[in-house]
Amino acid sequence: MSPDKITIHDIARILNVDSSTVSRALNDSPRVTEKTKNRIIAKAHELGYQRNDLASNLRKNKTNTLGVIVPRISRHFFSSAIAGIEETSYNLGYNVIICQSLEQLEREHNNINTLVANRVDGVLVSISMETKNYEHFEGLRKRKIPFVFFDRHLDIPDTSSVLIDDFQAGFDATEHLIIKGCEKIAHFSGPMHLEIYKNRCEGYKAALLKHDMEFSEELIFSSRLMEQDGVDNVNKIIELPYKVDGIFSANDVAAISALQQLKRNGYKIPEDIAIVGFSNEGISAVIEPSLTTINQPGFDIGKRAAELLISQITNSNKNFINEKIVIQASLVERDSSQHNMAF
Amino acid sequence: MSPDKITIHDIARILNVDSSTVSRALNDSPRVTEKTKNRIIAKAHELGYQRNDLASNLRKNKTNTLGVIVPRISRHFFSSAIAGIEETSYNLGYNVIICQSLEQLEREHNNINTLVANRVDGVLVSISMETKNYEHFEGLRKRKIPFVFFDRHLDIPDTSSVLIDDFQAGFDATEHLIIKGCEKIAHFSGPMHLEIYKNRCEGYKAALLKHDMEFSEELIFSSRLMEQDGVDNVNKIIELPYKVDGIFSANDVAAISALQQLKRNGYKIPEDIAIVGFSNEGISAVIEPSLTTINQPGFDIGKRAAELLISQITNSNKNFINEKIVIQASLVERDSSQHNMAF
Repeated sequence: MSPDKITIHDIARILNVDSSTVSRALNDSPRVTEKTKNRIIAKAHELGYQRNDLASNLRKNKTNTLGVIVPRISRHFFSSAIAGIEETSYNLGYNVIICQSLEQLEREHNNINTLVANRVDGVLVSISMETKNYEHFEGLRKRKIPFVFFDRHLDIPDTSSVLIDDFQAGFDATEHLIIKGCEKIAHFSGPMHLEIYKNRCEGYKAALLKHDMEFSEELIFSSRLMEQDGVDNVNKIIELPYKVDGIFSANDVAAISALQQLKRNGYKIPEDIAIVGFSNEGISAVIEPSLTTINQPGFDIGKRAAELLISQITNSNKNFINEKIVIQASLVERDSSQHNMAF
Repeated sequence: MSPDKITIHDIARILNVDSSTVSRALNDSPRVTEKTKNRIIAKAHELGYQRNDLASNLRKNKTNTLGVIVPRISRHFFSSAIAGIEETSYNLGYNVIICQSLEQLEREHNNINTLVANRVDGVLVSISMETKNYEHFEGLRKRKIPFVFFDRHLDIPDTSSVLIDDFQAGFDATEHLIIKGCEKIAHFSGPMHLEIYKNRCEGYKAALLKHDMEFSEELIFSSRLMEQDGVDNVNKIIELPYKVDGIFSANDVAAISALQQLKRNGYKIPEDIAIVGFSNEGISAVIEPSLTTINQPGFDIGKRAAELLISQITNSNKNFINEKIVIQASLVERDSSQHNMAF
């Protein structure tokens, strides 16, 4: 007998009990004794019985599965957000499947197709650095699969998102460097078509403005913020005809490789150049000197995003509404920014 | 018109072309000009057309999706292995969906059910610390869904796996400490029902034996190897009536928290106690002192595991055969083990 073909009636016949008892046992009903329940479950396992989830899900159009798409699972912020998503989902009876785009639009597109083919009930997305338009998300909307952006988002009408207050965080990071005595602050930005990097940069500019400091386009270094980008940016900074004494980087990866490249070139951190990163990667606390950075509450963002998505799944009136939750990030002050301590 | 109902015939009618042209364009056939192709794809997008992947997959019983289950996506080894799995899968036309068990048997069980309900073509698994039996994997076998273990595995007949030579790595790590002058070496192990931890521990014992050093059960500290476990183990070591001068930990997380706890208690690393970890987490290279550890080639293991699984999916004669690939790990020598340098 193929396991695909096994029904509760087969199990009932073999164990000489009613089919309704088998059904109740498999649904964990209190009306069946533990002993009988265990016997039935053991036999069902042994025969390879599996409720035809797919068929029944096609009927009720529900899989109790959420899809998550992130650029990279290995980054601290994303793995924390996934932990928050999983905790909330699990408590509310949803399973989670995860895909990574590796910052590529094509893969993000494929990920969406895979999740649609798997009939997920909803999707949580943080977009790739290559994502500039939202064509591929319209397919979700047309198929009435709710989706919620978290952190990296697109500004699409009637779409919900859970975000960091990136403007404020960029402002705080830059003002911190100014208060510590920096007079010429460079900014490492990600691609400016992404709202998060645009907003961090706007925060940087606003802090300069507040403190009557000159803004110069020359001090904005836009890249994908990978390890090599931090090195390349430092090589350009060193060649400038004036002295830069502060760096605010829109992620920790580029901040740390910049810090190491500066040290290799004989610069003292924070005495010669102070550095503030963004995202509080695990490595930031242990590097020498330890990196001042912005902590994004990833776990909390993941929880809120999952709650928002599930409320939209279970209440079809709430699908595709524009709901924005903005969460404050916080500065984690460490050694790399203690610039004025040197004087 | 609901997007679910849109067919290639609708698109053909609207654009005034043959249905076969639409079909060819959507299959990226060279028989359609780029211009026509783009027109058809744009219209298909606009109408929310989606090939009924689910229906056609049920027919041909293939989703071109692989499922991956790992304990934690955030650990360096697992995220590297996933990168290798994704590269191979993507090149061979498979999408990848990822689940994490968070070291819990119940979640691992749920993950398998989710992947089965999604009709993945095959599953790559590294098991949780709670997994002692393989009942839940038998369901995959009965449904003829091939699966391959990588790294953390169960010893199930007729099952393939891609493994590290954990015995050799445990031997190398321990012998390295002996050569560096350590005379009393403790071992932090994971749960011994897991083959990988048993084998690392056997390697530790074999190295002691080779060098005529006494083995003592008292110096084996078994735990889940979380951060707190490293601290707890150190607290026990400090209380021992004799001096321990070396630690071989079966992961870096516990090695690093042990290193920090020893420093907090005034011990010098590596002069008082030398430490070797396992898995080469990113943080190990930057902590002070930097951690000597075992590098597991995660990316390569992921690639090999995906290749093995896909070869089993595409060749049904190869399903459920016993194929074992064993890959050598290597010692990365850093500062935390330079014990004899102190003399």
